[in-house]
Amino acid sequence: MKTIEGGVTAAKGFQAAAAAAEIKYKGRTDMAMIYSEKPCRAAGTFTTNVVKAAPVKWDQEIVYHQPFAQAVICNSGIANACTGAEGYQYCRETAEAAAEALGIPAQSVLVASTGVIGMQLPMDRIAAGVKAMAPALSPALEAGTQAAQAIMTTDTVKKEIAVAVEIGGKTVTLGGMCKGSGMIHPNMCTMLSFLTTDVCISRELLQEALSENIKDTYNMVSVDGDTSTNDTVLLLANGMAENPEITEKGQDYETFCQALNFVNTFLCRKIAGDGEGATALFEVTILGAESKEQAVTLAKSVVTSSLTKAAIYGHDANWGRILCAMGYSGAQFDPEKVDLYFQSSAGKIKIIENGVSTGYSEEEATKILSQTEVTAIADIKMGDASATAWGCDLTYDYVKINADYRS
Amino acid sequence: MKTIEGGVTAAKGFQAAAAAAEIKYKGRTDMAMIYSEKPCRAAGTFTTNVVKAAPVKWDQEIVYHQPFAQAVICNSGIANACTGAEGYQYCRETAEAAAEALGIPAQSVLVASTGVIGMQLPMDRIAAGVKAMAPALSPALEAGTQAAQAIMTTDTVKKEIAVAVEIGGKTVTLGGMCKGSGMIHPNMCTMLSFLTTDVCISRELLQEALSENIKDTYNMVSVDGDTSTNDTVLLLANGMAENPEITEKGQDYETFCQALNFVNTFLCRKIAGDGEGATALFEVTILGAESKEQAVTLAKSVVTSSLTKAAIYGHDANWGRILCAMGYSGAQFDPEKVDLYFQSSAGKIKIIENGVSTGYSEEEATKILSQTEVTAIADIKMGDASATAWGCDLTYDYVKINADYRS
Repeated sequence: MKTIEGGVTAAKGFQAAAAAAEIKYKGRTDMAMIYSEKPCRAAGTFTTNVVKAAPVKWDQEIVYHQPFAQAVICNSGIANACTGAEGYQYCRETAEAAAEALGIPAQSVLVASTGVIGMQLPMDRIAAGVKAMAPALSPALEAGTQAAQAIMTTDTVKKEIAVAVEIGGKTVTLGGMCKGSGMIHPNMCTMLSFLTTDVCISRELLQEALSENIKDTYNMVSVDGDTSTNDTVLLLANGMAENPEITEKGQDYETFCQALNFVNTFLCRKIAGDGEGATALFEVTILGAESKEQAVTLAKSVVTSSLTKAAIYGHDANWGRILCAMGYSGAQFDPEKVDLYFQSSAGKIKIIENGVSTGYSEEEATKILSQTEVTAIADIKMGDASATAWGCDLTYDYVKINADYRS
Repeated sequence: MKTIEGGVTAAKGFQAAAAAAEIKYKGRTDMAMIYSEKPCRAAGTFTTNVVKAAPVKWDQEIVYHQPFAQAVICNSGIANACTGAEGYQYCRETAEAAAEALGIPAQSVLVASTGVIGMQLPMDRIAAGVKAMAPALSPALEAGTQAAQAIMTTDTVKKEIAVAVEIGGKTVTLGGMCKGSGMIHPNMCTMLSFLTTDVCISRELLQEALSENIKDTYNMVSVDGDTSTNDTVLLLANGMAENPEITEKGQDYETFCQALNFVNTFLCRKIAGDGEGATALFEVTILGAESKEQAVTLAKSVVTSSLTKAAIYGHDANWGRILCAMGYSGAQFDPEKVDLYFQSSAGKIKIIENGVSTGYSEEEATKILSQTEVTAIADIKMGDASATAWGCDLTYDYVKINADYRS
């Protein structure tokens, strides 16, 4: 497997475009289109929030019941959530506008939205954006990058990646882009992630590969504990790599899953490290768990603890808060067997052993915690299972961004 | 029922004292002692965190297995959590020092701690504090107030209250004090609350009254979603009101429960409104629920949502975040039937009806949300159950306080 340049346009046959449609932002792009020359098999995972945005309902219909998808339209100004029947109708009109501009069925156009909840879409501007993007579609890597920029909201960096693997004697490419930042505590998947690949694979295995992988990737990210109404991961496969179709589990399937895991892990770390107001990526690994479920529960509890996140912002080795967050997670373990380490590019230090302080150097710990990517590793010595979760520190800027997000 | 002056020394036979023992703070009191002239029946509820502080374990032994309690010793500098066998031994030594100074058995001395996790208690200073407090005990209302001040950490105001009710022809008094502020998301009860009463009641009913009431009071408070290692509510009843002993449920028991609910609700609102860095108390009421459990789940999800809390800080009627937090709570409901209101001393406004915006005045909503106590009321129109939760807004100062709490 090798990392290559680009994102959603890296795989064969995929094109992208962006437009400044003034949905909410001015002076920047805020709509993106992804298009595949050939119809794709589509897999998707969606928010588990009871309050589902209109585009989530629209996409579920397509992913679960339609044979193919060929395009994705996304806007980054208005979430189209809590908008009732009117909002769903606007979603349909968006797909119809794209269908007309691209000459494909509306039932093959996926729609995604992110932004303010509760406002209706300005359909005239959405339609104008779609019309502008269709003729501007391009397979160039830059077109993918422009799409990745257009879907950003409070994100500060674009998030895209692509990898190439060999499957069945053919080079298969998988690329993706996503946006994250706030209202990030995926319970199914994170806000918006779009993955494109030219692999040839059955629809069932494509969905299974995605559904399994999100448990270790998107579902392990939390910026603020708020599970969005719009969370969507879409994975489009157009088969243009011409590898023998993957129809059963085996080496080819494993290779594809590894590529998928690599891409999704990269994107998840990007989302966490670029959490609203964040100054650091905060990674939490639980080792020695009895079961994967136990490890996941513990890791997610620590990574979502406001007190722990504030301590990371302060570069403070406040390990009591980590043990506390493990303790209220709901998972059972013996606090008096826990070893805890902090790790970053500046080194690794053992902070507690069997539940009590090792008498470590606060100065060294602070140095380790002052990097832009820091990891806490807790070994609970009960078994062989492990899990890793990703979050970020809690800062003044998180509050600032969210105290006046709408204004 | 009437509210009267005072706190833990309001009920007959209770005395209190405070000391500046320099456990962590300098230039202020940081130890408190409560003493009853007669041995008390004791009830208690404790943190559900797997990581339990040494004093929690000590108090559970006394409340569950000893016949009486007669004193409480509290320090507000060091939590004595994650301190292993050494920490538990220091807890025992604290009780023994108090027992000697007061001439009562060590097994009747309850101990409570709050503060930094992971540090050992400076036993010489704890012992000196105990020795200084015993002769300073006083039944004056001021002594109760001084104790309420001594247990504060990042709290900005002392929290105490007392009420008098008539039971069996006698005046029964119930008073209490508590401290809250950070690491507040009680799952059993909040950090530290001490209730004293002269009611005569059986041990079983005393515990039942407390255990039932905390579900509607302390367990409905959240400042930051972090369930502390030290959460403790203690309720001491010395029988000195000389009412006929309450040994079964009936009018007398109900009257006592009402007084308990009044005192605990008052203290919980104080904790929430004085959450670390808070500028406003944020109350969330769910109406029309199918069950109490559903109402509780929804109310707690909203009151703990970082995004909602940040919006309250910004006086922003960002109702989408409230509906979103209800949606990911795990409770089922129909988003398209929800009515939502904001209410405060500045008025009441309907924000959404049947899941969509009413086209309310943003100016009026902002005025309502700019008060120091604001309430969100959601009616989900499924049944008759309801619940109220209390929290606070999320501010720069919460981050500031917690980024360098230890230094």
